[in-house]
Amino acid sequence: MNKTIKVYPPGTVANLVCGFDVLGLCLHQPTDEMEVTLTNNKQVIIKSADGYALPSDPALNTAGAPLLEIMQQLNNDTGFEVLIKKNIKPGSGVGSSAASAAGAVIAANHLLGNIFSKEEQVSFAMFGEKVASGVKHADNVAPCIYGGITLIRGIFPLDIVSIPAPELWVTLVHPQIEVKTSDARQILRKQVLLKDAIKQWGNIAGLVAGLMKNDYGLISRSLEDVIIEPVRSILIPGFDEVKKKSLVAGALGGGISGSGPSVFMLSKNEATALAVKKEMNDVYNSIGLEHHLYVTRVNEEGMRVEW
Amino acid sequence: MNKTIKVYPPGTVANLVCGFDVLGLCLHQPTDEMEVTLTNNKQVIIKSADGYALPSDPALNTAGAPLLEIMQQLNNDTGFEVLIKKNIKPGSGVGSSAASAAGAVIAANHLLGNIFSKEEQVSFAMFGEKVASGVKHADNVAPCIYGGITLIRGIFPLDIVSIPAPELWVTLVHPQIEVKTSDARQILRKQVLLKDAIKQWGNIAGLVAGLMKNDYGLISRSLEDVIIEPVRSILIPGFDEVKKKSLVAGALGGGISGSGPSVFMLSKNEATALAVKKEMNDVYNSIGLEHHLYVTRVNEEGMRVEW
Repeated sequence: MNKTIKVYPPGTVANLVCGFDVLGLCLHQPTDEMEVTLTNNKQVIIKSADGYALPSDPALNTAGAPLLEIMQQLNNDTGFEVLIKKNIKPGSGVGSSAASAAGAVIAANHLLGNIFSKEEQVSFAMFGEKVASGVKHADNVAPCIYGGITLIRGIFPLDIVSIPAPELWVTLVHPQIEVKTSDARQILRKQVLLKDAIKQWGNIAGLVAGLMKNDYGLISRSLEDVIIEPVRSILIPGFDEVKKKSLVAGALGGGISGSGPSVFMLSKNEATALAVKKEMNDVYNSIGLEHHLYVTRVNEEGMRVEW
Repeated sequence: MNKTIKVYPPGTVANLVCGFDVLGLCLHQPTDEMEVTLTNNKQVIIKSADGYALPSDPALNTAGAPLLEIMQQLNNDTGFEVLIKKNIKPGSGVGSSAASAAGAVIAANHLLGNIFSKEEQVSFAMFGEKVASGVKHADNVAPCIYGGITLIRGIFPLDIVSIPAPELWVTLVHPQIEVKTSDARQILRKQVLLKDAIKQWGNIAGLVAGLMKNDYGLISRSLEDVIIEPVRSILIPGFDEVKKKSLVAGALGGGISGSGPSVFMLSKNEATALAVKKEMNDVYNSIGLEHHLYVTRVNEEGMRVEW
């Protein structure tokens, strides 16, 4: 009989303000839903559970490409059938492609008897990111697979570091506009001022120290981005006002989630995270822009799995 | 009767490879020696204990300028007499000016009954750095006053973070050539590639996490500088060979101390630090360049004070 597993790959927030391309965190909500079945039929079959138009060629699918890599490594008759319900919409900036890729890999690893290390799983999932954006980046797949907050110190070779953190609540708003990762990357300058880079690496060092020391004040002061945010935030209507009002409401700080358009704010507790949600809602209602809101926590446990 | 205190301000290593302008560490050796006396004569008198030519105008002296600032804040008849023995030579890259400035401030603070916070003491000491280099930087005075490893997340306002660290040995070589801080700064490019900056902030985040996790492997992998070292190391004869041979001898990593010409290497234990010393000695003997060597530990306790 074919074995089936259900996984709930969560959204992730890449960059974390001052950690462009190297930091990411795992959310509890939103999550996709995936059912993955191990077969003896050497192919990958991808089906959508919600009518969402997924690429049917597995090599062009963010869940399919990592599974093909796993099959190539196994070099036997193993195959997979995948049923995906996409709750995390592509282009939201919350790691939609990473969720599909990491979900497929974690499911496959469980089905195969946990034969791969977490680092190997990230390596496989990065093939999905390559399909989605042309670049094998790990700042979403790593937190999706490890849970919590992760640092990608290096890609070649992969060097992933879990950063311990105190309780953190996340308020997330997804304004219903599309920002393509490739566009968001294109508008960045290839060169930056050394003095800005120094400020940025002082901040990321402060953020890591603040997280590991449970020092909310230091975390808050370090959530500053002098390089990427000033350029990319122009693509996001209401960004400055959302940020300003969230800070007044007590948020520690926040910014663009991944390459946007979602905006996230971190808070010490649920009450503040809910107050931030209200401010975000008010801003986008006043602009008249449809939006989705989430209040959730940093997910230290990682992806939920059900047999 | 006038009160006198003796302090031994230690050398410091700024930058720590991937933390240009924001990281620094405090050494046990070398140290200057300063005797500071509290007087009722509203002036600062600076004397050299070893015939070293110090600027006699206190406003132009790295120890004098901070004391003048303290006196201005006190706004009474307090004055200071300072006797300095400079063991840390200016232009060595081991925080010579910071030692004089921090030594004067720590001595004054003790003489006045510990009325200043550590952060205030750093603020005063930065006036000494301004005299020395024209810039109010804190990456040497902060570790000299706090001890251990410090992050200067910001200067205005001052935001100093102590980074806990496991046992670390430091091997230091000071080749007898002079590199002026201002020259070493001038040759740096004002702009850097974004991709290099990303690598650098991945490394500093990794270094902070590695130090706080007592993860020597991560510390070692993170001790990489893709921005400053490739430019500045050209000013230091033997640099590449010292680095290569130190790593072979087991050093975790290292690089230019401050703006050079001193080169430092970190090791897990004394035996490795001594093996690194031998390699450094061999390299500079083969070049025929006079040099001084130190094997010491990161100084978690900070400056030694004697009444």
